[in-house]
Amino acid sequence: MQISPLLQSLIEALRCLPGVGPKSAQRMAFHLLQRNRKGGIELAHLLHEAMINIGHCEDCRTFTEQHKCAICANSRRIESGQLCIVETPADIVAIEQTGQYSGRYFVLLGHLSPLDGIGPNDIGLDKLNIRLRSEQINEVILATNPTIEGEATANYIAQMCSEADIIATRIAHGVPVGGELETVDGTTLSHSFLGRQKIDIYR
Amino acid sequence: MQISPLLQSLIEALRCLPGVGPKSAQRMAFHLLQRNRKGGIELAHLLHEAMINIGHCEDCRTFTEQHKCAICANSRRIESGQLCIVETPADIVAIEQTGQYSGRYFVLLGHLSPLDGIGPNDIGLDKLNIRLRSEQINEVILATNPTIEGEATANYIAQMCSEADIIATRIAHGVPVGGELETVDGTTLSHSFLGRQKIDIYR
Ligand SMILES: [Zn+2]
Ligand SMILES: [Zn+2]
Repeated sequence: MQISPLLQSLIEALRCLPGVGPKSAQRMAFHLLQRNRKGGIELAHLLHEAMINIGHCEDCRTFTEQHKCAICANSRRIESGQLCIVETPADIVAIEQTGQYSGRYFVLLGHLSPLDGIGPNDIGLDKLNIRLRSEQINEVILATNPTIEGEATANYIAQMCSEADIIATRIAHGVPVGGELETVDGTTLSHSFLGRQKIDIYR
Repeated sequence: MQISPLLQSLIEALRCLPGVGPKSAQRMAFHLLQRNRKGGIELAHLLHEAMINIGHCEDCRTFTEQHKCAICANSRRIESGQLCIVETPADIVAIEQTGQYSGRYFVLLGHLSPLDGIGPNDIGLDKLNIRLRSEQINEVILATNPTIEGEATANYIAQMCSEADIIATRIAHGVPVGGELETVDGTTLSHSFLGRQKIDIYR
């Protein structure tokens, strides 16, 4: 054991961060100890506060430490009558950065995945259904990921919209198939919003 | 503001980690919130504990939460009579992994850099001088980085050793010039230990 037990534990704990392997974790720990203990203490504090206090917006389910997120609390966001469905809170950030959209959101925090036992209620579709039937919504924009699961989830929600007599549109396939929405560049994402298509349900 | 203030603060705080830009920081924060809050809380705890409780070994100056590190506390490490001088605690980890060395260490926590106002006492050379004159040391192995500052620091310490009548050796230039010791592969580092050369001081 060349590293003290506490330092070893810190290095192992740092590996819970995505993309951080044993070498990076060691570099991070030594860097903070040697050059930025104040930053490390501040990070520890904010990490604890965030993990404990950040919950989900009661309207759209994105991350917030309030009851409602800033977007849902903004009355001007209601006027458009548009509701955009995304898989993760990070997708909201990506879409907001395009400046193409000024409506509200609903975050699934996942996608339908029957093989993993993830059904409609696990991604909040019961809650979405209530919103579709109680709010003034003219259009539901389906911005789930362009993956097999994302498409299946979009189709399922389009069906729900059809039953509630609300137009459902799908963002255009400017986004690369098989990719993740969060990593798409802003121009591509803008095009995909502008080129969105109405979904026809044959019944 | 599409992200809550607390989440925004967490993302900014994560950027104190080396190699973490705005995109990675956001991905890390969302990942922990969505998939691993327990891991995030544990990381916050260990980060706080480490920043507060990890100090420096009173003998070699490496990181430890004890008075002495495990290497300095190991009596078998004294027998070789060798003392290896490194710039950072991470260098000890790299050298220990080669399995070529079983003596003790002294960590400079930097190198001489007159332009930045870093002189001998700022890298612990007053403390090293006391060790050279009070302990049974047969050989000082200079394993500072193969950079201009590392070489200058090695030469300065070789001079100190000469005055204390102790042999000083420099690890061989198997390590790439201009690189950092910590990132060198184990084989190269082993060779550099085996091929170390005595430093002759002309006076
Ligand atoms: Zn909301
Ligand atoms: Zn020590």
